[in-house]
Amino acid sequence: MSDLAVLQGKYDEAKAKNLALDMTRGKPGSEQLDLSLPMLDLVTSSDYKTIAGGDSRNYGGLDGIPEAKELFKEFLETESTNEVIVGGNSSLTLMHDTIARCISHGNSSSSTAWGKLEKVKFLCPSPGYDRHFSICEHFGIEMVPVDMIEGGPDMDQIEALVAADDSIKGIWVVPKYGNPTGTSVSDEVVDRLAKMSTAAADFRIFWDNAYTVHHLSDDVDVIKNLFAECKSAGNPDRVFVFGSTSKITFAGSGISGIGASESNINWMKGHLSMSTIGPDKINQVRHMRFFKNFAGLQDHMKKHAALIKPKFDIVISILEAQLGGKSLASWTNPKGGYFISLDTNNGCAKRVVQLASDAGVKLTAAGATFPYKNDPKDRNIRLAPTLPSVEEIKLAMEVVCLCVELADAEKNA
Amino acid sequence: MSDLAVLQGKYDEAKAKNLALDMTRGKPGSEQLDLSLPMLDLVTSSDYKTIAGGDSRNYGGLDGIPEAKELFKEFLETESTNEVIVGGNSSLTLMHDTIARCISHGNSSSSTAWGKLEKVKFLCPSPGYDRHFSICEHFGIEMVPVDMIEGGPDMDQIEALVAADDSIKGIWVVPKYGNPTGTSVSDEVVDRLAKMSTAAADFRIFWDNAYTVHHLSDDVDVIKNLFAECKSAGNPDRVFVFGSTSKITFAGSGISGIGASESNINWMKGHLSMSTIGPDKINQVRHMRFFKNFAGLQDHMKKHAALIKPKFDIVISILEAQLGGKSLASWTNPKGGYFISLDTNNGCAKRVVQLASDAGVKLTAAGATFPYKNDPKDRNIRLAPTLPSVEEIKLAMEVVCLCVELADAEKNA
Repeated sequence: MSDLAVLQGKYDEAKAKNLALDMTRGKPGSEQLDLSLPMLDLVTSSDYKTIAGGDSRNYGGLDGIPEAKELFKEFLETESTNEVIVGGNSSLTLMHDTIARCISHGNSSSSTAWGKLEKVKFLCPSPGYDRHFSICEHFGIEMVPVDMIEGGPDMDQIEALVAADDSIKGIWVVPKYGNPTGTSVSDEVVDRLAKMSTAAADFRIFWDNAYTVHHLSDDVDVIKNLFAECKSAGNPDRVFVFGSTSKITFAGSGISGIGASESNINWMKGHLSMSTIGPDKINQVRHMRFFKNFAGLQDHMKKHAALIKPKFDIVISILEAQLGGKSLASWTNPKGGYFISLDTNNGCAKRVVQLASDAGVKLTAAGATFPYKNDPKDRNIRLAPTLPSVEEIKLAMEVVCLCVELADAEKNA
Repeated sequence: MSDLAVLQGKYDEAKAKNLALDMTRGKPGSEQLDLSLPMLDLVTSSDYKTIAGGDSRNYGGLDGIPEAKELFKEFLETESTNEVIVGGNSSLTLMHDTIARCISHGNSSSSTAWGKLEKVKFLCPSPGYDRHFSICEHFGIEMVPVDMIEGGPDMDQIEALVAADDSIKGIWVVPKYGNPTGTSVSDEVVDRLAKMSTAAADFRIFWDNAYTVHHLSDDVDVIKNLFAECKSAGNPDRVFVFGSTSKITFAGSGISGIGASESNINWMKGHLSMSTIGPDKINQVRHMRFFKNFAGLQDHMKKHAALIKPKFDIVISILEAQLGGKSLASWTNPKGGYFISLDTNNGCAKRVVQLASDAGVKLTAAGATFPYKNDPKDRNIRLAPTLPSVEEIKLAMEVVCLCVELADAEKNA
């Protein structure tokens, strides 16, 4: 019997198990959400005020309550609370709205609203976060892929592109434990991003620090402070830093924040004053009572790590056991974040995802991690191990590995 | 001594009291916020699920939890929960974002994004809500004032304008207990809005039903269901209905909703899927446990009425006592809402607000209730009695009435 026939036989057996497993979404597991349950008891009918005694219930406070601004100052690594806005339950909304405002009005360095320009482009280090790419596509922003290499996005490509083309208005970066590669940017990448010359005066770095405290163990990545470096380089307005507690407390009921220069923050406040009379301050009080301060938030993350580290470990150990040394695939072994990135040989990813799906294992669509859903080498697959149980992951990954072997064998048959 | 000198003397006496009173803002008073405090105890670490047992803590549920959609179906008077989205803490955000999306993409009936058109105009019944006008100004939408008359905006003007000009893309209406006049629209206005011919195929009515349950007593205004009439007239996509619990539970921590045709709702969901992974569902659970259903919400509003009716009464009684029969001013006596609208004789409003301010009584800036902050007759003053105490209102209104007399006397001197 040929190798292909053997693999096909194994696959048919797996398929017969009628599995229904899902490794598509970067959602916290239920036991992770349980970690923050005590927070729900910390604001009550008799106790709901801010530390300073402010009434959190009424309108007002466009940029958040003082203690939440203090927390996000540390979380987003700004120098001052004047460089912070604390918002509602979603940093995705902050990012989307920032782009939307640049499109309709331009930003604080623009002479023209982006929507009035013939063409607007964004650099998209790839593979990357699909929702960043969706926002660009939604607003008609042309996406220019940039390779992800060791230490982050390829700065040689970036520097050449932004220097030459004033229609390139921004770049998306997930600087730490990036989605999906788990890569953290090097000091050199930070320095070069801060210092590079951009043809567009209103160029902005969208620094989505989604996983900044999401370590898997005590062996953590530390990245250089881009905002500080931008200031030193004379480009203080270049960067917007985003973060939220969505994967720290409750995914749907967290608080989010943006860090940027005072000029950028004032620009943002001007826009916010058109669209809201302030964020949900009671929920900010709830969060601050739970964390007390940034050290409290960091301690809390250790509990998350204890829950999800075994899930990452089982993925890696099955990949090593089933695919190690076979030249069929490579994969990341991140120190934090929410994903493991699996690269098959070229031209196999779509087929693997299809085979897995047919066998009852849902994976993120192949291509989703690239602009326009187009992975030019058709090789990247994003694995999201946080939501399923360890036992489910084990079953799912055995199928995934088998599908990698089968797809490769099919291709070479 | 002349009348003017007598009034000037009285005014100087009032000024010497060094008052510091504020009747500018439509904010709930602290005792109103207290009414909803029990809500804060209804979601706890051991009890946070939806009625159906859904986990309210994670991502998902773009359009809200099922029971909140049921509530807003009744609240916004749609036929089905498929015609409802329940969002975050602010209907202002829903309104702003709807306009922003029309500007960047057009709506579900548009052939062109509004931002790509040479000119976009909105009809603005005036006096009206300043934040509606700010949104228009922010997006470069030309505002066309329409007179507010008995029974709502002047339909003769509106019908003629929308039939003739396809750059008129929408109209703002606060249909019940309007801001600031307290006027509720007549059945005829609803019928004519539903049936009128509009040159623009993508014309939209922004029906800001901010005060739909905000009655001051059992003598309530009932308005005809515009959404149902639009459907009957074959114009189901014409209207977006907005509402929130901001002035029902907590002004900063309520929940908001939009009601519209399924076509409009699907359009909106498509946009929302770009900008959020869902609203704060835990806060929706909290609200639903507090209200249980729409009848519960309506009962709750009676407690608000009991608190604020005396505040409205004292404003009216002082106006009547000090200005009644003097041909110096007219004022509304609304059955609900948040405002009393005071019309001085022409050319006096700015002076009254200035005089009052100098005597320590802050009023909403004259002109704020008109597009471009321009009250062509300089006569409208918006009085907001909910936040101050009855005693403060009494002091403030005595000053206001004196200022009306003085400003008029100055003008005729």
